[in-house]
Parts: sequence; C-alpha cells; structure tokens
Amino acid sequence: MIGRLNHVAIAVPDLDAAADQYRNALGANVGAPQDEPDHGVTVIFIELPNTKIELLYPLGENSPIQGFLDKNPSGGIHHICYEVDDIIAARDHLLSTGARVLGTGEPKIGAHGKPVLFLHPKDFNGALVELEQV
Amino acid sequence: MIGRLNHVAIAVPDLDAAADQYRNALGANVGAPQDEPDHGVTVIFIELPNTKIELLYPLGENSPIQGFLDKNPSGGIHHICYEVDDIIAARDHLLSTGARVLGTGEPKIGAHGKPVLFLHPKDFNGALVELEQV
Repeated sequence: MIGRLNHVAIAVPDLDAAADQYRNALGANVGAPQDEPDHGVTVIFIELPNTKIELLYPLGENSPIQGFLDKNPSGGIHHICYEVDDIIAARDHLLSTGARVLGTGEPKIGAHGKPVLFLHPKDFNGALVELEQV
Repeated sequence: MIGRLNHVAIAVPDLDAAADQYRNALGANVGAPQDEPDHGVTVIFIELPNTKIELLYPLGENSPIQGFLDKNPSGGIHHICYEVDDIIAARDHLLSTGARVLGTGEPKIGAHGKPVLFLHPKDFNGALVELEQV
C-alpha cells in the first residue's frame, strides 16, 4: 500500500540557521522559504537525490508545530510522509486494522496541494505518519 | 555533500508487532529480523521504492537504544541517515563548521558493513544524523 517516502519533516527553532546549515555544512540543495498560512508553517524543502527533507517553522498564532518546539526547544524530527495511490482506500484499510486517523478522518489538502491524512503516533511506534495521495 | 537518504530509523517497543503493522496495515515490503550484536540492536528493514525504514529493537544488556525507549515507551523516530561519498572529508568539513561528531570521531563499521558516523543532535535541529559512506 505505502509507496515512496515523500519526505521527512524536521521542526526547527531557527529556519535561517537550519537552511544555512543544510546548504553549507551538509552541502545540500536547499529551496526558498514558503509560507503556508493554511497550515501554520513556513517550510523549506531540501532536495535529496531520492526524497526530500522538509524544514518546518511556526507561522502565525496557532501553528500546529509550536507545541512540539515548546517541548523540544532544539527542534526534532516531526513526521514522516509515505505516498499512497488512493488515500480513501488507504484510510479505510487502516481503520479496519484498528489504527486511528487524526482530526475528522477526512483528507485535507496538504502543503503540496495534495490530499493528506495523519495517523496517530501511538499506533505507529511513536512516529507521526502522514499519508499523501500522489 | 550529502547524497541520498539511506534510511529513517524508528525505535520500536515490540519488533514483531511493528513488522506485522508495516506488512499488513501499511502493506509494505518487510524483511526478516537481523541481530546486530556489535551494535546492540535487532533490525528489520522495510524496503520502500526510494529508501528504507529501519526498525530498531534493543539487543543485549547495553543497547544504545534502550535509553531512548525508556524515555519514549511507544517508540519514536530515532535517526536519519544520509549517504556521503567520503566520510573522512565529510567529517572534516563538518568539524570545520563547528558541528560535533559523537564518540571518538573515527568512523565505525555500521549495521550495513560500511563506515558510519553520528552527528550531535543538538547541532542538527534535535535530529540525530548518521552519515554512511557508500
């Protein structure tokens, strides 16, 4: 069911510093910051040859990653995103196994303009898992 | 400098349950458990089309991931591994930027039989980063 690893998201306390570090210390291909007001984050994508790293920084008053940064002031790996062909079929199969989908259970349009869902981390070894229909 | 994302490692509290979940709930291609006594872990690799997930479970008395599981009883994303062509050149460049390398600073032979180093998570947005020479 799951396909490619679309990205690994890392919440960072200083977006400019993190971008500089990936560009200069790690020598990676770092994109420009993109504000995503609907998602409460500013993101920078780092293009690796086989996948992406998504640097996340809070945007606005109710950012969904502010609480994570409050608990993890140095930042941390926030979630991993797997691609699926059919997000409704994937959701229904996961629900049938007892896994919990966060929020209303209906896909939202994610930062890439595609339908996404998040799965409960307690059901997935403490890892927050995003599914994105590609 | 960094190349492909080689793997994302997830520490899990129940290796059989995690393997079943990736196989059946997430429909992924799950390998057999491999004991790595030199590294204090039993690992299962999940092959995605573009990279791997490495499930980690403690092996023996002094497993390096036991403390992580004590702090995170549900498990959690433990580290990400980037590939490099020349691990010594990568290390020396990173040291010149002020980044800290864990342990002695000399590469060890990792679970894949290749030289690896780990970078200090506080220097990398709270994310434990492994470098593997491929």
